[in-house]
Amino acid sequence: MRRLDGVAYADAMSDTISFARGAPSLDIVDVEGLKEASQRAFERDPGGLTAYGTSVGYVPLREWIAQRHGVEVGNVLVTNGSMQADAFLFDTLVKDGDAVVVERPTYDRTLLGLRERGADIHMVELQPDGIDVAALRRLLEDDGVRPALTHVIPNFQNPAGHTLSGDKREALLQLAGGHDLVIFEDDPYVALRFRGDTLPTMLSMDHTGERVVYASSFSKTVCPGIRVGYLVGPTEVIKQIQRQATNTYISPNMVAQGIVYEFCVSGAIDRSIATVKDALERRVDLLAQSLAEHLPEARFVAPDGGYFMWVELPEGTDVDAMFHAAGNRDVVFVRGTDFLLEGGGNTLRLAYSGVTEQRIDEGVRRLADAYRAVAG
Amino acid sequence: MRRLDGVAYADAMSDTISFARGAPSLDIVDVEGLKEASQRAFERDPGGLTAYGTSVGYVPLREWIAQRHGVEVGNVLVTNGSMQADAFLFDTLVKDGDAVVVERPTYDRTLLGLRERGADIHMVELQPDGIDVAALRRLLEDDGVRPALTHVIPNFQNPAGHTLSGDKREALLQLAGGHDLVIFEDDPYVALRFRGDTLPTMLSMDHTGERVVYASSFSKTVCPGIRVGYLVGPTEVIKQIQRQATNTYISPNMVAQGIVYEFCVSGAIDRSIATVKDALERRVDLLAQSLAEHLPEARFVAPDGGYFMWVELPEGTDVDAMFHAAGNRDVVFVRGTDFLLEGGGNTLRLAYSGVTEQRIDEGVRRLADAYRAVAG
Repeated sequence: MRRLDGVAYADAMSDTISFARGAPSLDIVDVEGLKEASQRAFERDPGGLTAYGTSVGYVPLREWIAQRHGVEVGNVLVTNGSMQADAFLFDTLVKDGDAVVVERPTYDRTLLGLRERGADIHMVELQPDGIDVAALRRLLEDDGVRPALTHVIPNFQNPAGHTLSGDKREALLQLAGGHDLVIFEDDPYVALRFRGDTLPTMLSMDHTGERVVYASSFSKTVCPGIRVGYLVGPTEVIKQIQRQATNTYISPNMVAQGIVYEFCVSGAIDRSIATVKDALERRVDLLAQSLAEHLPEARFVAPDGGYFMWVELPEGTDVDAMFHAAGNRDVVFVRGTDFLLEGGGNTLRLAYSGVTEQRIDEGVRRLADAYRAVAG
Repeated sequence: MRRLDGVAYADAMSDTISFARGAPSLDIVDVEGLKEASQRAFERDPGGLTAYGTSVGYVPLREWIAQRHGVEVGNVLVTNGSMQADAFLFDTLVKDGDAVVVERPTYDRTLLGLRERGADIHMVELQPDGIDVAALRRLLEDDGVRPALTHVIPNFQNPAGHTLSGDKREALLQLAGGHDLVIFEDDPYVALRFRGDTLPTMLSMDHTGERVVYASSFSKTVCPGIRVGYLVGPTEVIKQIQRQATNTYISPNMVAQGIVYEFCVSGAIDRSIATVKDALERRVDLLAQSLAEHLPEARFVAPDGGYFMWVELPEGTDVDAMFHAAGNRDVVFVRGTDFLLEGGGNTLRLAYSGVTEQRIDEGVRRLADAYRAVAG
């Protein structure tokens, strides 16, 4: 008999369609592959999985990541999910009152983490081809802001779905060189491109090796519950964070990281990524079609990858009221205001990663109905 | 072909005998049981293991822990190892400059964690039957110290190996009631008693439900690499820490916690504990015999459980010099000074959890040889 945990049970019982959570639906998670990877991991390296290990993470996985990014192992730290990596990085580089640059809009948890540490947050407009580099330059040169960190989500940005162009990557690095910036390249969605060509990371473009701290995760390519993320950065930064990691938890999860390692080297991860991309592409196409049909007032740019699409409704639309009307119609999303310090009252984020194809059209019908209810 | 990770490789290649690390040797870890538990976990609850989950931990494991301690689920938070639980608790209850009471000696990482947060640390002497309650009373009543937290490791204390008596548990709780203390009952070794009867936890003795925050872990009963620990405490404290956990890592490791849950409900954990206790008892007996034979100058109380034995050498012995002499003889331990703010230059901690029976006598011979080299 299959047991249902709390969440699965609630989902099965209710008819709610959730465009809220940036998480994959279970049908696109390779559970069988994970089961096999866990067997092999315990068989091949029982000592490595069951002992404390070290704060840098499971050594073979750390090496695999280093190789993948073409860096030395000393530049890599594997953590309990990339949120924990962010927390370590912020604790290390951002002091109370420090200026920090983020995109407008940006990931709500990033905003929260920075706010909690007393950062002086400067939001720089995000355009369809990425952060407005000219505006960032003005902030640095005209306003004299000297950020401790410049946070960018370069691919299929959360929440907007936009991707930073190659030219802007180059321009950002040049700006970083001239103004001694540290770019925090927060890149969990990079592997989920279903259209177009993958652009090089700023990490790989930065020949100084000093300008970029890069974070990514296996949440989107293996599964979120495995909680494995990582940082790549200058040796000194990684060493500092390693000390902090030791003092916080001795070592991250060796069992989970050992399973991820086996999932990677066996090639299961490539099949998993193909499955996920395929599903996401179909979902985003359906979502765009359904919006065009049922909610033609919605303006959006269909993303080339990732989990999220940003939707702008006509100026003056009360998305907060629509959110409540949507809840009454068993459909949920995240209000755009959650990703902003001010404004955005007519915007929302739709996550299509967790909604299966069969339910997207129905979800959009309900959204449209909620919109009509508040648009009057 | 079996791959060896870095640590296993170093161990296999060198002849070093380590009494330093509080970790089990691989021969007493139930790798087969873990493998089976991981299979069942992925089969029975794929959604629960692979999704984000919530910051309180894997729901079925949280319920299992609550039941085991006879508390409500709202009093339990499952974390990535109990060190992470400590860090959350300190962040929540200990502000810069706050007085905190710990035992003398105490776990070095606890000292470090408190020092990092600017705590005003008061060490109260640890006696063979636990913390000196009369001295704690004087500290509170005569010196007017008002600690934010009183940290006690009640069973087979790290580093001393001592256990808090039933009478002193009662006395501590009374003192807590009179002085509005919060006792942090840090209890990772409780299940590893190989002699005598288990004493009730202060958590279970505290009928107010407000005086004790309890922490424990599966590191010693399942394995350290699984990184699963937990807190039990008043609902309000747990809620505060839950918010902090959400902001730090969204959720702890669901895969690892799902495996631990299956390991628990299948009964594998009871077999694992029996194996570990049996091995520890034989090891501590051998250690005591070998010390009596080769290093009769050593004074110690053989513990009734746990991983550690505290050794006092004659007044004036330079254990720091002995530590280096021991290193040259391929045997390592932790100096007593690591567990103290001052004094203890003639003491050391021997962890017998990681040394197999065949090597204990040889290890002690080397220790004795190092002692003779520095004692002159």
